[in-house]
Amino acid sequence: MSAPTALHPADARARFRDGLVTPTTGWCDGWVQANLITIPSANAWDVLLFAQRNPKSCPVLDVLEAGEISGPLLGGPDGDVRTDLPAYRVYRDGELVETVPDVRDHWRDDLVSFLLGCSFTFERALLAAGVPVRHIARGCNVPMYRTTRRCRSAGALGGPLVVSMRPIPEALVQRAVEITARYPETHGAPVQVGDPGALGITDLDDPDYGDPVPVAPGEVPVFWACGVTPQAAVVESRLPLVIAHEPGHMLITDTPEPLVG
Amino acid sequence: MSAPTALHPADARARFRDGLVTPTTGWCDGWVQANLITIPSANAWDVLLFAQRNPKSCPVLDVLEAGEISGPLLGGPDGDVRTDLPAYRVYRDGELVETVPDVRDHWRDDLVSFLLGCSFTFERALLAAGVPVRHIARGCNVPMYRTTRRCRSAGALGGPLVVSMRPIPEALVQRAVEITARYPETHGAPVQVGDPGALGITDLDDPDYGDPVPVAPGEVPVFWACGVTPQAAVVESRLPLVIAHEPGHMLITDTPEPLVG
Repeated sequence: MSAPTALHPADARARFRDGLVTPTTGWCDGWVQANLITIPSANAWDVLLFAQRNPKSCPVLDVLEAGEISGPLLGGPDGDVRTDLPAYRVYRDGELVETVPDVRDHWRDDLVSFLLGCSFTFERALLAAGVPVRHIARGCNVPMYRTTRRCRSAGALGGPLVVSMRPIPEALVQRAVEITARYPETHGAPVQVGDPGALGITDLDDPDYGDPVPVAPGEVPVFWACGVTPQAAVVESRLPLVIAHEPGHMLITDTPEPLVG
Repeated sequence: MSAPTALHPADARARFRDGLVTPTTGWCDGWVQANLITIPSANAWDVLLFAQRNPKSCPVLDVLEAGEISGPLLGGPDGDVRTDLPAYRVYRDGELVETVPDVRDHWRDDLVSFLLGCSFTFERALLAAGVPVRHIARGCNVPMYRTTRRCRSAGALGGPLVVSMRPIPEALVQRAVEITARYPETHGAPVQVGDPGALGITDLDDPDYGDPVPVAPGEVPVFWACGVTPQAAVVESRLPLVIAHEPGHMLITDTPEPLVG
């Protein structure tokens, strides 16, 4: 299945609101995609401080304060962060209790939502520069891994760095680094090139989130910091309630991609 | 008086702890300087969110959580944010009650301290590129102005953008813009070149903080976002207790200046 590249974000969000469940990689060329992390306001300080201290994995694009269900990134008053993503995970006390396309039943007025940059944003630039993106070519989700590298903690909140992986032909690795370095708000340059073991990843075929993709001979697995990182932290820290996007199933925002290069 | 450019930050902080009161512009070449804003933890969420929403004026370098009086930027356990800056302002309910070299008498265990980037950090790069910095040449503080431009608010917190001003020879303005643009963590490129009226500044000789400096014929007043911005916001918003650096009297940190260029 190939993603609808030319769709406007509002139309994509309307499809998700109507029930379509799909990873969003390759969708809506030219628009920023975002991770969602929603927690009770009592935990919001720790999450915002965690993001500030781990900016490479948690670049904050915007925050919806307690009681807000929309904002500029969701198209203004008509948006609804509870329905406009393709799929959500709901965790209670650190346990995954549900994966659903709509979280209105779980909503409370004290919930605060963080919208964080996503590496899907730079994939168009990679493709435009001739760097292949395997999971887009295969029409699947990007593989993501929990690493043994710890984030800097904040209050009660700590957890591992989570990364996304793209196999890149050796000759194009430098180009991929240069291009993604220009996108600091969506994770920037890779955190690791080659050697998955340096991140404590023992089996590339068994990602912790998303779908596995093959790494061909002559290709190098390249790892970028991933916006699932704070989701792993709030789960590990057993916050009483966490709502997050299903990894790879992002908010497609009304923010145009930055012009860089 | 010329500033001690070759001093190590730890030695500078020791002098301030011993009672020396002076602006820090030009001090300790090669080390990042920082703004301080200290508020009760009940207000910390609003301040951190305000900083996240106004990153150009409020680049967060680090946060000392409630009960902490030091951290890596202050040289570790021996540092003390209550004594190691040259001078502090203490506000209660939005009113300036004291300017003092030591705030231990005002300290409480629920206070949270934000350390924010300062434009003094890029002045060495300006000088190295042949761009004169008037207030350093004159041995005085940089002039700062409250503008009519409003920041994006956060919770109960709102206020005006505060800017610092440096007169730059016309032929060097482009260079000054290019150089400072490389320092996004210390306010980056100017917010305004020339025309003080566009920011609502009516009299350059009457700054709201710091010292006036003359703008010579052939020079253009150039304005950068200033880390006094959150201080203006917490005062305008009448937080019950605010401790901040005296403008221009910064924390000199143990963080080396970023290598850019």
